[in-house]
Amino acid sequence: MTILALDLSTAALPLYNSHSNPQNLTPHLSMSACFPRSPEPIFSDPKQRKMPTSLHSSRTDTALTNPLSRDPNRPQIDDHVYDYAKFCRPSFSNLVYCVPICENRPKTLNHDEDGGDMWLRLKDEARSDIEQEPILSNFYFSSILSHDSLGIALANHLSIKLSNSSLPSGTLYDLFLGVVTGDQEIIKAVQDDLRAVKERDPACISYVHCFLNFKGFLACQAYRIAHKLWSQGRKILAILIQNRASEVFTVDIHPGARIGRGILLDHATGVVIGETAVIGDNVSILHNVTLGGTGKACGDRHPKIGDGVLIGAGTCVLGNVRIGDGAKIGAGSVVLKPVPPRTTAVGNPARLVGGKENPIRLDKIPSLTMDHTSHISEWSDYVI
Amino acid sequence: MTILALDLSTAALPLYNSHSNPQNLTPHLSMSACFPRSPEPIFSDPKQRKMPTSLHSSRTDTALTNPLSRDPNRPQIDDHVYDYAKFCRPSFSNLVYCVPICENRPKTLNHDEDGGDMWLRLKDEARSDIEQEPILSNFYFSSILSHDSLGIALANHLSIKLSNSSLPSGTLYDLFLGVVTGDQEIIKAVQDDLRAVKERDPACISYVHCFLNFKGFLACQAYRIAHKLWSQGRKILAILIQNRASEVFTVDIHPGARIGRGILLDHATGVVIGETAVIGDNVSILHNVTLGGTGKACGDRHPKIGDGVLIGAGTCVLGNVRIGDGAKIGAGSVVLKPVPPRTTAVGNPARLVGGKENPIRLDKIPSLTMDHTSHISEWSDYVI
Amino acid sequence: MTILALDLSTAALPLYNSHSNPQNLTPHLSMSACFPRSPEPIFSDPKQRKMPTSLHSSRTDTALTNPLSRDPNRPQIDDHVYDYAKFCRPSFSNLVYCVPICENRPKTLNHDEDGGDMWLRLKDEARSDIEQEPILSNFYFSSILSHDSLGIALANHLSIKLSNSSLPSGTLYDLFLGVVTGDQEIIKAVQDDLRAVKERDPACISYVHCFLNFKGFLACQAYRIAHKLWSQGRKILAILIQNRASEVFTVDIHPGARIGRGILLDHATGVVIGETAVIGDNVSILHNVTLGGTGKACGDRHPKIGDGVLIGAGTCVLGNVRIGDGAKIGAGSVVLKPVPPRTTAVGNPARLVGGKENPIRLDKIPSLTMDHTSHISEWSDYVI
Repeated sequence: MTILALDLSTAALPLYNSHSNPQNLTPHLSMSACFPRSPEPIFSDPKQRKMPTSLHSSRTDTALTNPLSRDPNRPQIDDHVYDYAKFCRPSFSNLVYCVPICENRPKTLNHDEDGGDMWLRLKDEARSDIEQEPILSNFYFSSILSHDSLGIALANHLSIKLSNSSLPSGTLYDLFLGVVTGDQEIIKAVQDDLRAVKERDPACISYVHCFLNFKGFLACQAYRIAHKLWSQGRKILAILIQNRASEVFTVDIHPGARIGRGILLDHATGVVIGETAVIGDNVSILHNVTLGGTGKACGDRHPKIGDGVLIGAGTCVLGNVRIGDGAKIGAGSVVLKPVPPRTTAVGNPARLVGGKENPIRLDKIPSLTMDHTSHISEWSDYVI
Repeated sequence: MTILALDLSTAALPLYNSHSNPQNLTPHLSMSACFPRSPEPIFSDPKQRKMPTSLHSSRTDTALTNPLSRDPNRPQIDDHVYDYAKFCRPSFSNLVYCVPICENRPKTLNHDEDGGDMWLRLKDEARSDIEQEPILSNFYFSSILSHDSLGIALANHLSIKLSNSSLPSGTLYDLFLGVVTGDQEIIKAVQDDLRAVKERDPACISYVHCFLNFKGFLACQAYRIAHKLWSQGRKILAILIQNRASEVFTVDIHPGARIGRGILLDHATGVVIGETAVIGDNVSILHNVTLGGTGKACGDRHPKIGDGVLIGAGTCVLGNVRIGDGAKIGAGSVVLKPVPPRTTAVGNPARLVGGKENPIRLDKIPSLTMDHTSHISEWSDYVI
Repeated sequence: MTILALDLSTAALPLYNSHSNPQNLTPHLSMSACFPRSPEPIFSDPKQRKMPTSLHSSRTDTALTNPLSRDPNRPQIDDHVYDYAKFCRPSFSNLVYCVPICENRPKTLNHDEDGGDMWLRLKDEARSDIEQEPILSNFYFSSILSHDSLGIALANHLSIKLSNSSLPSGTLYDLFLGVVTGDQEIIKAVQDDLRAVKERDPACISYVHCFLNFKGFLACQAYRIAHKLWSQGRKILAILIQNRASEVFTVDIHPGARIGRGILLDHATGVVIGETAVIGDNVSILHNVTLGGTGKACGDRHPKIGDGVLIGAGTCVLGNVRIGDGAKIGAGSVVLKPVPPRTTAVGNPARLVGGKENPIRLDKIPSLTMDHTSHISEWSDYVI
């Protein structure tokens, strides 16, 4: 697990425009549930990026009402050096509900070196489950306990899930194993996704539970394999995997999309993500969410989702629009225009909570809090 | 089949707050398509529950324009003693379209004693189908005709549907059979669900058709088995079944949810029901409906749906909000606040038809009429 | 492939009210991406149909601002004689983005005689794919190369997809083969659907890719077979196929529905089409679209969708309402009232872009352009 040492100048760069493969990126956004003290929108437009990253720009002082930047003389780096792992571990879950000032945020770093710990934990959980339910022994043995690593187990499990009478699991296993073992970044992303589900979904009772059963998690890993094949020019296989995942998990992610790490696809049924969509790190997406294109021209035509975004169930985001870091989109929304960082958009058509001119800024990362409804009181025309 | 003898004082109690397992309940709500003559909202708040159940409260007189309480001197019990079976039988389907006064409602009781009749009927339908389509003989024989009871046939059919190469149908069959034969309430609920589909879905041509094919019905029964396992503390198995049902039927019902009887999940694709959701009796839910939570804290965080509620396609109800008995939620709505009994909420965000102060009261049970659109004329800003 | 020679009098007749089986129809609507020069709404009400089809009715002059009828003295037939195939071929895709005047529209006709060319092309694509990915040899051989015609290959592929342990693929294959080889109209529709996907979906890389993988395409063909069986009175089999397709593809199309040719079900997850729905030719429908009924009475209770309509993701159209030829329904809309031809309806509840009194008329066929978002600027209350 890499240590993230960010300063404002890097934090101000959007993740996904400067890199061809987001899976190779060190996430830019601080992984605490609270936003870093950055006075600038992390997900800013190029013009803004060139501005000096002053802590005292009048615009952001107003927008944030500034709980995050109470002491301009304090060394800025303190707030921007985070261990990516720290918020993922159950013991840090309370951070998500930290006070806005985040005084209790640990400054020392410690992190999971290589994810081997997670595989051991998965195996322990599997053994514990078998003790409780011996009738599942065969299932857990063939799916978990007989394998030597997370990658092998994943290749095996996915190959069985996506196989059918025309596509034997053996063929898929060889293919998947080659991809997974050849790309350590995928394994890291798998681990981050497992942590994301475990941390953010209260219905997830263990890593092994997520690994074996959660179709959102499995569909996301099928995408990661397909994306790797796609980027290697093996489009036929990539699309085959996409379509099998769409049938088996009802999650339709084009292998050309670029998706970061720490992704939660909660419930996942009906999720559609188009070819040129880009999704940052630590994003939470509910079921029936569409990141769709428009028109039938090729080219960049799908949404760009920043880090830490939460998108509620049944929402459509259409076209090449940008959803800023840490933004929240309410359930059932239709979004056709950009949404600024840390704001909340709701409705059909979507509006910014607080108004277009002075939208209310979120002080917690919505994808981590999974708070879908606290915007109610601000949604002024909600009259029931 | 139990006779329902309700009086106003019981009818005024919400079903699902006073019992740990709604499957053990005698449904409180009258099963006629017309509401009983209760002048009080059945699904009232605790304060209202303590009020005397006067037939002449000015508030409800106005709200109902009172077609249901035309004769205050008539013995009230008459309207509240119903045979649960009577509205479910095809021959009584016209009751749903009864005039508001419901003059033709039979006062005598007769009911199906134990559901054995339904199993015989299913077998008869199976034989008739085979006569028409001999190529289906094997399918019907192995699914229906070779079994001795509805419970055994259900355990067998579901075990085949939910099996895969990792989870053999034999293992699941033994598990399911143990649950189903050990809990007569499940069999009663299965029968009520079969009647609900047959009665309310004009596309359902027979019980056997529903039993073999309707994924909403099958997903609901998979939930009932998973819920029993969950309540026995066998969470690992319960969640495994949930996730297999989500893959196979694309219906994701947490086994911790509590769901009454006579449930129709129409079309069913994409339905998501969270862990602490509660659903009363005789509820009709269309596809892509979410009863979702908010936040990632554990605890009571999902909607509570009263008896006789109809929820249209694509609707999200989020958070621990109460949808009153006999309420109707229009398709594509987003509901984040409570909806009073017998009212109609539509839109994104949802509004009450007739306005918040004086919403129009429904005089028929929407889950039984399946009337999704008669609120159009009241939806004032609908301008096409 | 039939040549379409349309004149205004036929073009003004709605497709689907005068025929029992739309699959037997020659599509009425011009297949160019631009609308023909008809000054009358193609999908008009009976009263309007009786009006003389004058090119100079003041109403349409205003509505269209008339780019399509710039020269009233020009022989009208020129604009209405199209080769159906011409817009489907990749080389003609630029036509969709033609200028409104469509000067570059070829006047000469050439068309694919019987679709045999398409089958040869599918086989060529299969061989090319195998060269790139030899591990798929068995899959492509058993699915494509071992078969003698498109119909046989389709019967085989669908029978495998829809089979399970209770319904062997051999039984389904015999059934499907009988239907497909006995009805040349189905094969024509299959070809038109293949062209529709290839032409309109930029993510579709080849015919064989669509044929093997696209669940929207496969679900549509399963419907065509089920519809044939339904119209032959074999309802039990028809419904069985419907329900298997709903499980396997999560596309639930009642076999009683009547659906034209050149249909694109894009992504397709969660599509629900009711028993008495009618869909014209060259319609594009995104995922999670519902064409639903209301009430539980039998009878004509589902929407009627004209030719060339585009329906965005997550939209519900409920009740027996008519969506006029060439209309566009935005994503996430709820439509309960008729939508005039060539207009755009968006929102929940849906409104006409440009207003009810004088809605903006589309000058391109939305199902062909797949333009989902160009109405934004007209959607006046969209404030982000």
